[in-house]
Order: sequence, then structure tokens, then C-alpha cells
Amino acid sequence: MKPIKVGLLGIGTVGTGTFHVLKRNQEEIIRRAGRPIEIIMVAARNVERARAIVGDGVEVVNDPALVVNHPDIDIVVEVIGGCGIAKDLVLQAIANGKHVITANKALLAIHGNEIFSAAHKKGVMVAFEAAVAGGIPIIKALREGLTANRIEWIAGIINGTTNFILSEMRDKGLDFDTVLKQAQALGYAEADPTFDIEGIDAGHKASIMASIAFGVPMQFDATHVEGISNLQAVDIRYAEELGYRIKLLGITKRTVDGIELRTHPTLIPAKRLIANVEGAMNAVLVQGDAVGATLYSGKGAGSEPTASAVIADLVDITRLATADPEHRVPHMAFQPGSISNLPILPMSEIVTSYYLRMHVEDRPGVLADVTRILADLSISIDAMLQKEPGDGETRTDIIILTHQTKEKNIVAAIQKIEQLSTVFGQVTKLRLEELS
Amino acid sequence: MKPIKVGLLGIGTVGTGTFHVLKRNQEEIIRRAGRPIEIIMVAARNVERARAIVGDGVEVVNDPALVVNHPDIDIVVEVIGGCGIAKDLVLQAIANGKHVITANKALLAIHGNEIFSAAHKKGVMVAFEAAVAGGIPIIKALREGLTANRIEWIAGIINGTTNFILSEMRDKGLDFDTVLKQAQALGYAEADPTFDIEGIDAGHKASIMASIAFGVPMQFDATHVEGISNLQAVDIRYAEELGYRIKLLGITKRTVDGIELRTHPTLIPAKRLIANVEGAMNAVLVQGDAVGATLYSGKGAGSEPTASAVIADLVDITRLATADPEHRVPHMAFQPGSISNLPILPMSEIVTSYYLRMHVEDRPGVLADVTRILADLSISIDAMLQKEPGDGETRTDIIILTHQTKEKNIVAAIQKIEQLSTVFGQVTKLRLEELS
Repeated sequence: MKPIKVGLLGIGTVGTGTFHVLKRNQEEIIRRAGRPIEIIMVAARNVERARAIVGDGVEVVNDPALVVNHPDIDIVVEVIGGCGIAKDLVLQAIANGKHVITANKALLAIHGNEIFSAAHKKGVMVAFEAAVAGGIPIIKALREGLTANRIEWIAGIINGTTNFILSEMRDKGLDFDTVLKQAQALGYAEADPTFDIEGIDAGHKASIMASIAFGVPMQFDATHVEGISNLQAVDIRYAEELGYRIKLLGITKRTVDGIELRTHPTLIPAKRLIANVEGAMNAVLVQGDAVGATLYSGKGAGSEPTASAVIADLVDITRLATADPEHRVPHMAFQPGSISNLPILPMSEIVTSYYLRMHVEDRPGVLADVTRILADLSISIDAMLQKEPGDGETRTDIIILTHQTKEKNIVAAIQKIEQLSTVFGQVTKLRLEELS
Repeated sequence: MKPIKVGLLGIGTVGTGTFHVLKRNQEEIIRRAGRPIEIIMVAARNVERARAIVGDGVEVVNDPALVVNHPDIDIVVEVIGGCGIAKDLVLQAIANGKHVITANKALLAIHGNEIFSAAHKKGVMVAFEAAVAGGIPIIKALREGLTANRIEWIAGIINGTTNFILSEMRDKGLDFDTVLKQAQALGYAEADPTFDIEGIDAGHKASIMASIAFGVPMQFDATHVEGISNLQAVDIRYAEELGYRIKLLGITKRTVDGIELRTHPTLIPAKRLIANVEGAMNAVLVQGDAVGATLYSGKGAGSEPTASAVIADLVDITRLATADPEHRVPHMAFQPGSISNLPILPMSEIVTSYYLRMHVEDRPGVLADVTRILADLSISIDAMLQKEPGDGETRTDIIILTHQTKEKNIVAAIQKIEQLSTVFGQVTKLRLEELS
């Protein structure tokens, strides 16, 4: 059968991996797809560098428009990243009737609705397995594997850099800044690590998962995003004493009133499988009403793991392109006419449990004042840890784990607690999920 | 759009779950599939009981031929199980041009080649997500999610009954017979538990995974199957001391000479995520050359988890049925013309590490004799544990972990060790996989 012809936009880490894996495993891939899948053109800023990677058999161009407008190309793979030229190129490829594969989570989280709508009108596919959790086929699991289920919630370790940092902080008892520097030296964190450590990258991925799990529009602007740069080593230690680990989780939940969509450091029970996903690994836990909880874990980044997802999409499109467009897997897992307008809840309305750490005067009555404030707001306490003050010290730490309550209640409680004369400085608040 | 019409063969645990979930989540499923999926006829041995489950809206018949021959039915779901009438009914449904979904691992592991060949000729789909690991979409991951990869090996906890028993044995230090009785009382093991505890069920599933991972015919008859009924509590304890857990794994590996396909109790490092999958849960670890290791875990059995897989197949067929048959996902993941004849290796040729436990006279020279035998067969030792003899006793246990070697070497070594006058009784041999 005649080959599927592919044009590559960008040949950085993911593009290079895609080129190499496609070449190395071409026999295995033909055995599966039934026909060859060939990269015939690559657009790169640095043509020389690209030429060194792909050799002579592939046309290398500087102008990406030549790829998206090439009459022989069936599928355009966008691995440029970001929301700059990538957006225009993807839209142009769609307008030209080409299927598109993208690993670009920022692009989809921010402009996904527009892109999918254009693709739907043109009857082409936009596939994006590589946009979330690298090589783990989580998009496929959500859009296809779990279609029987009313999905209730998802919680994912979907950023390897921060998981590596948190693992190191816990393992070695080091503080954030020290570990970040090590991570940068080892190549686990970028020179400008903002997108990773501030939770933006994970927030993009959580937005995408929320859309395809619940059938709502992509809406990154309504996502709560909180990173790990303010996380203290002491909280990781106290959490551990209480049987919890702290992970940066992208969380989305369906409630009667709306959808929770939030990325933040989270205490989770140490005995959960996902709590033991360490280092740069990713894992996504999905709760469906029929299947219960299923976990998917593996490498969430890197050249070949991400290429694995890009190529799975290439094979998928090769197979599915022949299906009636109205019967293909819908871009957002739900039919375009069935997208729900269930709102994303503001953070004040989300419901979760909390870890509170406060520095207090070590004297009778302090705890009574604190617990009275919580009780008045109907916040019940699940566990408490009071440390002995150090020698000669009169102040100590109290850690409280609460049962579930609305975020606005805990915020109100913290305001009152911080006004107590026996409480010093700010109360540290972390969210806690049992994931059961 | 007009509904997809489904006929159900059997309405036991999985059939009932499928009916209930399809009804409960019908709105969510229509939003995804784009059209209703309706069970219009059910064949059951006990018509009264079936009627009580499905109510009045569905035709209930005693004769399953009425389902497979029904002109309006698009998809036949076979949840009868076993290789008796199920086989003929599936083949008849295919002959009638109907797509088939089956949860029947025994049927596929033993007659899969014949069934897929018939389906290919007729241009219909046979989907079987529910046949392996219940609600975990592992078939989809292997056939679609990991298509970029040359899959290197798979190791799966794919039988919940035995994993429950092993977890309890370890957790409570009990022996096999005691825990089996408890498992039966709790409904985790059947009255006749043979298929589960002797590894046959896991062997069926491993055969299916080997086929779709490597593109070889289903060949259960070449599968090595070994259960847990002879496993001693003492070996679980010693394994733990050495940092390992014992799991019943279905393992398949591709080597230059052929494919290893074996199900047996296996020591795996306790620190691996899969080693911490406890109770009735399932998990499958897949090693691909591009993606590395990915893990999939969740409930591997039960009414609604298995129904989740059956319904995912219903949605898939609804979507994919419109694709050109030559471009659908191939039944065995690889195109029918690309199935490899790479042989399944005999057990004597497999390569793995071993745990050996022997009961010996506690006197100088014994260990020297044993290690000499191993050295002569080029088997190197990775770790050793020698227990102090009990008070007044002159015999003790030696446990040896070896590096990788061929099974025939270890068998030869054991024969020689058992001939030593200082070694009493048989040497216990368990296989060990680092899974790295």
C-alpha cells in the first residue's frame, strides 16, 4: 500500500526522537499499520543541524509554510511548541485538509477549542497523545479505553521535573533551591524552570484531561495553578510522619455544581501506588464509576518516550483516516454537539482536606483556641501532630489534618487563626487528597 | 443517528454488569459514541432470571442461535465463557457478518487464530479488551498506544485471585491452604479454584498478550503454566528478607532465538511499583524500546470493571466499523499477512535469575560444595542468606539468588545439589525477575 507521508515542523528533542524511532522500528510499524509511514519533509530553524539528523533522504526546509502547504503531505506533526507560530501553522495545515499531530499542551490548553473546531469543519484529525504524560497512552485511555464510565476524577503526576525535585527533597531532606540547582545540572530542569516549577505545564495538561474526561471546553484560564517553589522541606517531613507524601498533582473532579480543575502540591497517603511514583516518572490515576480506579505510569518526557506517543498517533491516523469523519474518535472524546457547559468552579468552592502547619506559643489554651475556630466553621479534625519545643524554646509547631471542607472555610479559619496572639507568622496550608 | 443494536450471549456477572452500566451511563456513552448503543436481545439459560435483570424492554431468549442469527443485531457480545458453545456461537455470528465482542480468554488463547481468521475474511471486528486484566485498557495500550515500539517484554499480575492469596500469605504469614479457604469464603476464589491457582487463567491472558505484543499466533499449548498451590510461606518470608516479593506473573519476552511465554510465581524487587500492587488488583508492566517501561493497573475482574472493557469495545466498534476493514486495528495488532513464526522457546531455553532454597547440614564445606556446582555450570551468585540453625538443630536453610542463566543450567545444578549427602530433600526453585 502507498506510504503515508508526513511533514515535521521542528526537529528538537521530540522531533529527533520521532525521526529516529520511526526509522529504527519501521518494519515493526509497517507490520502494524499495514503501510509505510514516511517523513518526507522537515522544517527547521537550523537547516544544517536538521540535515545532520535526518540525512539525505528527507527534504529539509527553513520555511515551515512549505510543509503545511505541501500537496503530498498527509499528516503534519507539530513539535515546535508554544503558542507563537505553532498555532498559525496548525490552523493552516488543517485548512489545507491535513491531519495534524501535536505534542503542544500549551497550544491545546489555550487554543484547543478553536483548533478542534476548525479540524471538525474540515473533517481532519488532530491527535495529541504526546501532549500529556509523554509516552503513557493516557489520552487513548481517557478517550477510548474508559468510554463506558462516567469519569469522576483524575489526579496525575504530570510533570517530571517537579516530581524529581520532590523525590529528592524527601529522599535527602534538602530544600527546594538546592535540589532545583541539582536538577538543572542533571538536565531534569531547564535553565528557566518557571513553567515546570510553578505548575503551569502540569496545569496545561490537567486542562486537557478535564476536557476529554468530562466533555467540557478546554479552559486553561479557569485553571488554578500553584507550583512547588514555596514548598518547605519541613512540610515534606511532617507529612511523612503522618503517613503522607507530597506530590504536585493535576487534579480535576466532577461535582454536581461544576468541575474542580487545579494543580498544586498535595498530600496523598504514602501507601497509595501513585505516591510511590518517584523521580522523573509520571502517573495518572483515573476514577471511573464502573471500572473504579485505574493507574497509568511511565516516562512523561524525553525524546523517545514522547516520540512513542507521536508515532502511536501516526499509526492511529493511518488506520482511522479511512473512517467516516463523524464516527472517528471525537477530538475532545465527546461529540462536538455534546460539549457540556458545566462551569469550572472557583477555588473558594472546591472541597478537599487540608494540612495546616502553624507556629505557636507552647502554653495551655492555644490548641483550644485553634480547634474552636475550626469547629465554628464546621471543619473537623482528622489528625494532629504537636511537636515538643526545642531545648530552651517556648514556641512549637502544630500540624492539623482536616476532613473535607470547602476552600473558603479553610481560608476563613486561617485568617482567624493568624489573628491569635499565640500564633506566629503565617499558617502554611496544603491540600490533601485521600485518592480513594 | 440510528442505534447500534447489540445481542448478549449470557447474562452472568459480566453480562449483568454490561447491561447495567450501559443503561446507567447511556447519556454519557451517546455523548461519546455519537449514537445510542442498545442491547435488544439476551440469550440466557435461565430466562426467568435474565428477565428479572433486564426488565421488559429487552427480548430474552433461551436459544443463543436466535441472537447470532438475528438480522437487526450489529454486534454480538459473548460472555458465556469457556470453549464449549461459545466457540460455535462466535463463529456463527462472524459468518453472519456481525462484529463480536468477547471476554473469553480461554476461547481466544486456544481458538483465537481460527476466530480472527474467520473475522478477517468476513471483514468484521472481534474485540476482546475484557479478556485480559478486566477494566484496565491493556489490549488497547498494546495494540494502539504502543505501536511505535518494538515491545521487549511484558510482565503482568493478571489474576486477581492469586494476587489476593499471595498478598494475604505475605501480610499475615499464613500458608496457602488457609488463605485459599478464606479467599473462597470471601468470594475472591471459586469453589473449584484450579484455573486460577494453577496459573491457567493467567496463562491464557499471557498467551493473548504475547500474540499482540510480538505479532505471533496465539499458542496457549506452548505456554509454560505454573501456579501457586505449592508455594511455601517460608519462601515468601525469605524473599522479603532479601528485598523481594513473590507474585504470580504472566511473562513474555522476545529474544533473538524465540519468545519466552511463561506464567509462574516470581520474585520481583519489593521497590518496584508493580510489586506493591496488592490484593485482587491487576497490573501489567510493558517494556518498549522507545517508551521504556509503562505500567497499567486497576481491577482485573468483577462485574462492572469487566463491563467497562466490554462497553469500551462497543464504543470502539461503533466508531471503527465505518473504517475500511483493511485499515482497522488488526485483531492481533499486526496485519494478518505479517504474523511472525518466531517460535515459543521451551522452558529449558529461557533465561532468568533464580531463588534456590535448600535444607542442609550445618557444617563446614557444604556451601563450598554447592557453590562449586553452580560455578561449574557458570551460574554466578547474586546474593545468599544462611539462617542460623534453631536451638539443638544441626540443619539449616541456605537461600541463594543467582544471576541470569538458562533454565536447563539451573535444573542441572539442582540435580547435582540434591545428590550431595549434606543436602536434605528437594531444592526449592523459584524464578526471579528484576523487571528493570
